[in-house]
Amino acid sequence: MAEVKVGIINITGYIGMELARLVHQHPGVKLTSVTGRSAVGKEVGEVSPHLAGIDLTIAPEVDQVDFAFAALPHGESATTVVALLERGIKVVDVGADFRLKDAVEYQQWYKVNHPAAEYLKEAVYGLVELNRDRIAAARLVANPGCYPTGAILALAPAVKEGLIEPDIVVDSKSGVSGAGRALSLTTHYAEMNENAAAYALDGHRHLPEIVQELQGLAPESALSITFLPHLVPMTRGILTSCYARLNRGKIAEGEKGKEDVVELYRDFYQDETFVKVVAVPPQTKQTWGSNLCLIYPTVDLRTGRLMVISCLDNLVKGGAGQAIQNMNLMMGFPEETGLEGLAVYP
Amino acid sequence: MAEVKVGIINITGYIGMELARLVHQHPGVKLTSVTGRSAVGKEVGEVSPHLAGIDLTIAPEVDQVDFAFAALPHGESATTVVALLERGIKVVDVGADFRLKDAVEYQQWYKVNHPAAEYLKEAVYGLVELNRDRIAAARLVANPGCYPTGAILALAPAVKEGLIEPDIVVDSKSGVSGAGRALSLTTHYAEMNENAAAYALDGHRHLPEIVQELQGLAPESALSITFLPHLVPMTRGILTSCYARLNRGKIAEGEKGKEDVVELYRDFYQDETFVKVVAVPPQTKQTWGSNLCLIYPTVDLRTGRLMVISCLDNLVKGGAGQAIQNMNLMMGFPEETGLEGLAVYP
Amino acid sequence: MAEVKVGIINITGYIGMELARLVHQHPGVKLTSVTGRSAVGKEVGEVSPHLAGIDLTIAPEVDQVDFAFAALPHGESATTVVALLERGIKVVDVGADFRLKDAVEYQQWYKVNHPAAEYLKEAVYGLVELNRDRIAAARLVANPGCYPTGAILALAPAVKEGLIEPDIVVDSKSGVSGAGRALSLTTHYAEMNENAAAYALDGHRHLPEIVQELQGLAPESALSITFLPHLVPMTRGILTSCYARLNRGKIAEGEKGKEDVVELYRDFYQDETFVKVVAVPPQTKQTWGSNLCLIYPTVDLRTGRLMVISCLDNLVKGGAGQAIQNMNLMMGFPEETGLEGLAVYP
Amino acid sequence: MAEVKVGIINITGYIGMELARLVHQHPGVKLTSVTGRSAVGKEVGEVSPHLAGIDLTIAPEVDQVDFAFAALPHGESATTVVALLERGIKVVDVGADFRLKDAVEYQQWYKVNHPAAEYLKEAVYGLVELNRDRIAAARLVANPGCYPTGAILALAPAVKEGLIEPDIVVDSKSGVSGAGRALSLTTHYAEMNENAAAYALDGHRHLPEIVQELQGLAPESALSITFLPHLVPMTRGILTSCYARLNRGKIAEGEKGKEDVVELYRDFYQDETFVKVVAVPPQTKQTWGSNLCLIYPTVDLRTGRLMVISCLDNLVKGGAGQAIQNMNLMMGFPEETGLEGLAVYP
Repeated sequence: MAEVKVGIINITGYIGMELARLVHQHPGVKLTSVTGRSAVGKEVGEVSPHLAGIDLTIAPEVDQVDFAFAALPHGESATTVVALLERGIKVVDVGADFRLKDAVEYQQWYKVNHPAAEYLKEAVYGLVELNRDRIAAARLVANPGCYPTGAILALAPAVKEGLIEPDIVVDSKSGVSGAGRALSLTTHYAEMNENAAAYALDGHRHLPEIVQELQGLAPESALSITFLPHLVPMTRGILTSCYARLNRGKIAEGEKGKEDVVELYRDFYQDETFVKVVAVPPQTKQTWGSNLCLIYPTVDLRTGRLMVISCLDNLVKGGAGQAIQNMNLMMGFPEETGLEGLAVYP
Repeated sequence: MAEVKVGIINITGYIGMELARLVHQHPGVKLTSVTGRSAVGKEVGEVSPHLAGIDLTIAPEVDQVDFAFAALPHGESATTVVALLERGIKVVDVGADFRLKDAVEYQQWYKVNHPAAEYLKEAVYGLVELNRDRIAAARLVANPGCYPTGAILALAPAVKEGLIEPDIVVDSKSGVSGAGRALSLTTHYAEMNENAAAYALDGHRHLPEIVQELQGLAPESALSITFLPHLVPMTRGILTSCYARLNRGKIAEGEKGKEDVVELYRDFYQDETFVKVVAVPPQTKQTWGSNLCLIYPTVDLRTGRLMVISCLDNLVKGGAGQAIQNMNLMMGFPEETGLEGLAVYP
Repeated sequence: MAEVKVGIINITGYIGMELARLVHQHPGVKLTSVTGRSAVGKEVGEVSPHLAGIDLTIAPEVDQVDFAFAALPHGESATTVVALLERGIKVVDVGADFRLKDAVEYQQWYKVNHPAAEYLKEAVYGLVELNRDRIAAARLVANPGCYPTGAILALAPAVKEGLIEPDIVVDSKSGVSGAGRALSLTTHYAEMNENAAAYALDGHRHLPEIVQELQGLAPESALSITFLPHLVPMTRGILTSCYARLNRGKIAEGEKGKEDVVELYRDFYQDETFVKVVAVPPQTKQTWGSNLCLIYPTVDLRTGRLMVISCLDNLVKGGAGQAIQNMNLMMGFPEETGLEGLAVYP
Repeated sequence: MAEVKVGIINITGYIGMELARLVHQHPGVKLTSVTGRSAVGKEVGEVSPHLAGIDLTIAPEVDQVDFAFAALPHGESATTVVALLERGIKVVDVGADFRLKDAVEYQQWYKVNHPAAEYLKEAVYGLVELNRDRIAAARLVANPGCYPTGAILALAPAVKEGLIEPDIVVDSKSGVSGAGRALSLTTHYAEMNENAAAYALDGHRHLPEIVQELQGLAPESALSITFLPHLVPMTRGILTSCYARLNRGKIAEGEKGKEDVVELYRDFYQDETFVKVVAVPPQTKQTWGSNLCLIYPTVDLRTGRLMVISCLDNLVKGGAGQAIQNMNLMMGFPEETGLEGLAVYP
């Protein structure tokens, strides 16, 4: 196959950088064009010294490419993405503009009218493990948010199989890179180091994604999900802890019930390369730099409550890695191409 | 008043060290005797250079003192504590041996028979904000665990006032010093740095404390509490996030309901020096080195769920500071003596 | 004595905050007035939640006080300080404006003309261990920079006693709070975490301070000092490593020479409360939150080179603590008043 | 070419793990055999969950392979390596046993008699940039220590070209993974976090390596090198700062001299893939997970002193990556095979 030409819109953000790293090691594609608003005219390696191996100048717009990743803030993304589609370029949008199916809900959460609502129906939510076939056929894929990736993968088997009551708590602990590269006192080293805090207690924009996708797996139920994100002092990684009462009678009592739950999860993900149901509680660091999501389901026998832990690297499986996984499907590569790297540990 | 002579049993652990620091700055007491199993015969400053200002040799047993803090592992603590009581010495036990009222439950969680079950009735659970008068009259106080301190303070107003359903999730994020000074791969720097993990998914020993104390506030209800602790890469601090559905009709609908909750919490803690109901979500670092517990109650309006965040320093309000607070009551000092220091920030 | 009223100019920076914490625990003074440019009209606890125990509103100018700390950027500081002096208020300037004695040198390093050069002669360099008597008699004291404090204390005995050749290398490793509260990509958490870098390779403004004070101890020699600062991923602490060849014949050969060096250092600092010559290599964390500077001198026997390590907390002995120490002398308090707190460890 | 079979002796240490990660992504070799003393009989993924993608059982001894990496402690390594050589297996020893050419010096530093001194002459010091041809022809290569890699690469051009006086100071700041996986209080998270310290002030075992290799580049001079290592709170990375006076007349005065130095360094490393002379001071994080060593030479014009900064990842270019680079030469692969990955940032 002729090498596929790829562009990255906004290489200067953390997802953009990570896309560049992953594209660089992908054997089937070549990065030929990059943009980045504040750095037009500069060399990639000048802006990001760790990318000095990439010999490209940051341009105001992408050249003609076969495939593009858009890593823009919401609101800005949609217009750029539509222009790309019209040029015949397939796109994974790692931003938020095409994740929610409902333009009204989009407006409520993002406080702007959707700039291209007519594309919402076509866009496919890019969680490969749930939507593989539709992604393979798509020209526009909305890459999931970092939190939703971990939350949905942790809960999908339980929700789909009717294992739990609709009352769900999702408590996530995230590394700071998820807050991006924009400066703030919250992410100032001296303030964030040796610190932990909850945020977005009035509602985080990733909540409606989580609800939309899980509700879609169990249309008959009425999920009632509380999602609370926290920042903890590390650069990468999201650990998500999910809690919900088990429906009675779905699994055995006692220790056997734990095994039933594990088996149900193992079955659900048995063919997946990038989701692993693990036998001991996972740690975020075990996924550092890799495209893996590790999942550990168990039961609090005292209360009859399902507990599921998921771990991933927010910039890889929760961002750039998942975007590559989507691109692989859309462009006909084996799904794991360029994503074989093991986690970097310690 | 003549100066009160104080001893610390096991000064070589983190709680022991922190007790030494706090006793050192307490104007009414003097540290006159310290023990530490592995370091008998050494100077305090030799074992812990930051305590070089304390001119004492580590002894195998405490001399005669007016008051002692026991900072020993469970099982070992009880015997030592009883011997002190019999010598007429009042004691705060910062270990776990006298926290649970039920010797059978103690045996289930700690896997040893209680060495001094006859003292369980007399021992007072040392959460000052709930048990102030009984602590003032006690000669033996069981200092609460670090997690229970944050969890109980976060939930006590809601449980006591019947605000919530009995189905409660407590998700805690702790700094690593809570795991103590014993070496392990989990707390090896290269493994713990840039890492987050849940642990004790089969049940943590602090759970029965939380249940015992909260259940005591609402004897008629049947609390069903899931407690899950997590380690995050920082030295000090516990952030606890609590979730429970609101009972219908207890507070107003909508934004007004949030205000009702805050007011209820403010009323509950209005006279407390060391518990503050704050107006913006707190951060663990705001309590670093201080005896404060910061509490932020709010409502997830989408689901009708109470969310309460608490922050504290596990070695101070969750350990040595709370122990000093207990001693102050037991010895007739104003409660805040020696604990006036503000948090060290950043 | 009637309580001394104290003001802090610019309480919103890290040194300003730390001054507030230390003044709060000082038994002889009371904080009565604070300023902070971007936060006029706000409560101290609103801007800095960890200072909520201080009940003051941030004003545009300090009220009449007996003593003031100015914590302003260079250039701005001088004018404010002079106005205070003219109101009869004694001042410790924790900024840089009155540290260098030579207005021309000031202009070269700070790129502005000195706004009040006529006060340079009067101002005393506030390194108590070298200038105690002059500080006690001063109305204006220039608090040393954080790096110079550690470097000068490490080298003063060797330079004053003619122990070393004039060719000196000073390599410092600093926590990030030294860079202040202004936002930058360098101090953005995700970039600074798990990172180390040298900076100011063309010359750091603290170099002329180091040269001025050390040269003053050995007027006959011609010191040739290279000073290179580094940022390492921690919030507080400076570790400084100093290297210089020993002059021949000044100390014994071999191991005995090491002992001679230690003895010389011990003698030099024997009466000091806040400088300790330690017997094992010190760690920055042993000074966390305290006013101590720990010093470890030794000899590289293979090369005949003196090596001296110093450790301090850049915001305390390297900033606010040293400022309090200066105030104590200027206002007639015992030097250690309010600074007795031990390091917070771990 | 038929795929090359590779073994790793002691996969359970940090270098062993990193070798496994890098071998896994190397297109020309296959990991077929691994050992690890404390974990014989376990699956690789059981011991190191992040390596679960490697389907091997840990054996007591390596099977027949074409090539082996030995990652054993000094003293133990030599015997194992010799046995491998005798089985016809080429070896890179990432341990210390074959680095020093002089068995007496080895005994002085390592306190044991060399177990296989007769191989010292044959073993090639595996710093590719200096010894490329000899490595390509070797069957036994001694992988350099992590500190020496950064120090020698930083100083080699200056020493070889006679740019500097023989009086050299090398001050290194290392991440904690360099201390390995053995537990100690020094590397206990709560003690190491937010801490910096110098160590090995009486001499570090990497000093004689540095001296041996640099002295070999300038046999006529008598180098006098002080090397002082420091631990700083990060997992990976070594930043080395080198200081030495310039010989007079070797470069131009003033700014032009800086340019001369940079040009000399650029020329020296112009053909190297893994050593880059950079235009702005480098940061350790820019090399995280990659095989790059970044070097920044400059001049302190006030003192006429050369300053050179080098940055690398101690587990990659300072360990496993360099070992792969050596293997590539020894087995006829292009030098950069399997090492093309960019740094993982942030």
